[in-house]
Amino acid sequence: MSKPLGIAVAGLGTVGAGVVRLLAEHGDLLAQRCGRPIKLVAVSARDKERKRDIDLSGVAWRDDPLALVKEPGVDVVVELIGGSDGVAKKLVEAAIAAGKPVVTANKALLALHGTAIALAAEKAGVALGYEASVAGGIPIIKALREGLVGNKITRLYGILNGTCNYILSTMRESGRDFADVLAEAQAHGYAEADPSFDIDGVDAAHKLAILTSVAFGAPVNFAGVHVEGIRQISALDIEFARELGYRIKLLGLARRTENGIEQRVHPCMVPLDAPIAHVEGVFNAIVAEGDYVGKTLFQGRGAGAGPTASAVVADLVDIARGARLPTFAVPANALSREGAAPMQRHVGAYYVRLMVRDQPGVIAAVAAALRDEQVSMQSMIQRGRSLEQGSVPVVLTTHETEEAGMMKAIKRIAELDAVVEPPCVIRLEQI
Amino acid sequence: MSKPLGIAVAGLGTVGAGVVRLLAEHGDLLAQRCGRPIKLVAVSARDKERKRDIDLSGVAWRDDPLALVKEPGVDVVVELIGGSDGVAKKLVEAAIAAGKPVVTANKALLALHGTAIALAAEKAGVALGYEASVAGGIPIIKALREGLVGNKITRLYGILNGTCNYILSTMRESGRDFADVLAEAQAHGYAEADPSFDIDGVDAAHKLAILTSVAFGAPVNFAGVHVEGIRQISALDIEFARELGYRIKLLGLARRTENGIEQRVHPCMVPLDAPIAHVEGVFNAIVAEGDYVGKTLFQGRGAGAGPTASAVVADLVDIARGARLPTFAVPANALSREGAAPMQRHVGAYYVRLMVRDQPGVIAAVAAALRDEQVSMQSMIQRGRSLEQGSVPVVLTTHETEEAGMMKAIKRIAELDAVVEPPCVIRLEQI
Repeated sequence: MSKPLGIAVAGLGTVGAGVVRLLAEHGDLLAQRCGRPIKLVAVSARDKERKRDIDLSGVAWRDDPLALVKEPGVDVVVELIGGSDGVAKKLVEAAIAAGKPVVTANKALLALHGTAIALAAEKAGVALGYEASVAGGIPIIKALREGLVGNKITRLYGILNGTCNYILSTMRESGRDFADVLAEAQAHGYAEADPSFDIDGVDAAHKLAILTSVAFGAPVNFAGVHVEGIRQISALDIEFARELGYRIKLLGLARRTENGIEQRVHPCMVPLDAPIAHVEGVFNAIVAEGDYVGKTLFQGRGAGAGPTASAVVADLVDIARGARLPTFAVPANALSREGAAPMQRHVGAYYVRLMVRDQPGVIAAVAAALRDEQVSMQSMIQRGRSLEQGSVPVVLTTHETEEAGMMKAIKRIAELDAVVEPPCVIRLEQI
Repeated sequence: MSKPLGIAVAGLGTVGAGVVRLLAEHGDLLAQRCGRPIKLVAVSARDKERKRDIDLSGVAWRDDPLALVKEPGVDVVVELIGGSDGVAKKLVEAAIAAGKPVVTANKALLALHGTAIALAAEKAGVALGYEASVAGGIPIIKALREGLVGNKITRLYGILNGTCNYILSTMRESGRDFADVLAEAQAHGYAEADPSFDIDGVDAAHKLAILTSVAFGAPVNFAGVHVEGIRQISALDIEFARELGYRIKLLGLARRTENGIEQRVHPCMVPLDAPIAHVEGVFNAIVAEGDYVGKTLFQGRGAGAGPTASAVVADLVDIARGARLPTFAVPANALSREGAAPMQRHVGAYYVRLMVRDQPGVIAAVAAALRDEQVSMQSMIQRGRSLEQGSVPVVLTTHETEEAGMMKAIKRIAELDAVVEPPCVIRLEQI
């Protein structure tokens, strides 16, 4: 048996403790699979006294994570601290500068600084493993940079945030409204006390930015992602989606267009015959379409100690086995120079729900606004008459049209006196 | 740019031509992704004159595939001839003996001789790539031996034959019967003129045997697979499945039990809330459950020139990038020595459809047979009364029970005078 691969783990939260537990439980199996043991040499975390239910005997403890880089016997640094800047970034940079491979689960770090980190790692000749940064339970980075490497990826999309998918699934199953289901998700620990990172689409956008780079060989461009969340989705929309033959999913979508790389995160109406429509609860799923392979779908848990530890350890095994891979499928200095495709140029179909005062002429005014912006309506539903002076929902869907015109029409519609709340706009995706 | 990886392709059928086309079309992209070009040096096929619509200028042609092994400039031999024995096996063995890595799409070869070939390859220190042998469009071998390598796989199952899934999907959508849909599939080229290899489950069993080895670190044991096909499934069964909340799928399933490795290929009743129930048409899908990662699902096309070429090229890229992997996730000489779990010991629930003469006492006799073998019935449906002297369907489902007792009960039921055709037995899978 060859020399052990010595590793240091920085950050012993849920994921860090999961990694330590996996390495201990499957030590023999991993040694057999790698041809050498993976040995935990040192750890660092904020609170040494915290109860973690893991055995750290014989493992060096360092209060300063940066000290792990120079720790004797450490071949690989595992960064599980999190955060796009601060100590996580310093640690990754220091490890690379010291010529040590890095494994990280840090999507924010890579979404914001991924290209620079990949360039530094490749210049230093060290591996950068980040499978755990996107949909931990799904080996999608490996699939894109190795398994589907023979393809030009033509389109990629997925359910990248388990919290949003749980909320939308539960709304559909229970008929309850967003705020109510969010509160329950928070009580169950499926959503954070401050849920904005998840429900406003930021977390999904981080992951999409990373996936886009691997899939299309482009620099990581988080700022180029058009991001919308799910706060405006109501029980009414869920019900209309059912009626129209769709399910509502928060998707991240990316493709190469003639205007540049298009990256979008927003709620979508997904047809029921699309396999991804049936991915429910906290599961994530990613569809990659390649010119030779056709459509492939990968589904699994996106978060949690077990799935994320599984991804971290897969990266460690790759390093133990001597794998050498360009970070984003092509060398970082060969990434394309394309910019982001402007969202205004996006072409697609739309679902719009309006709450309107039930009075003559409203529909005519809405239709005129669409017509004036060259938006072609596909269907319109007005459900029931209001009692007293209340409002009624009006739902319309459009044929394919350009985002710019659609948004102008929506603005005009929102300004109509009879329209009593901001319109809810959900894109209809042909997937 | 480093030295090219020289390859030879033996067999220029649909898949072989697809590989040649992919390498030509994506040559620059692959060179960038590998850090070196992949260069087609030589080919061999039975009929040099056949029109293939590929450019072979500058590529050596050898009538004898075995001559490719010694061809100057050939670093890797790609075997796309097919067949479990004969020239395909000779070629793979010769390449390994000459110290050259092998990439193959040959599931029959690996299902029958996989362990010996893996031992020879590892002894010679050469890579054996076989991603294309199982569900070409799904990088499942890579997922099992790398992406999920940190897990003990607890169970694996999948839709491994696109022809069967197409037939079952079409039967469900159209209400038509098996023979009719099979004939249509043959006319469309989705089923072979002699369809037995697919519809009797042999092809799925080949693939399952390979997957089992990677997932569980056991020798390839095709003989240990319990195999049943889909010929006995009727439109009636499809209709009863719908009524009971299931879809019928031909699945391959494997798990480690206390009695050994259990491998089964047979039609299953799959509950509608299982994602795999929604995998329709010619698509394949595989679910791998790991102790850390939980449930993962991989879906894609299982066959065809594009998906299979994509898998072959992924293996070539791995070799070009210098990857070194134990063939079945652990070294071949470390594979477990477990035998096959006897099917008689399998425990599960069952659906049974009988065609019976509509006369008093039949149900009592059926119930008695089950009771005598300690099989506990869960539900029973008798649909309609027969007109004239015809037969009526009786469907029953059981609670979990052991296969041995169930088969004894089925035998007794089949022998009842009032039961006019062999019972159709479909296992209910909790997945």
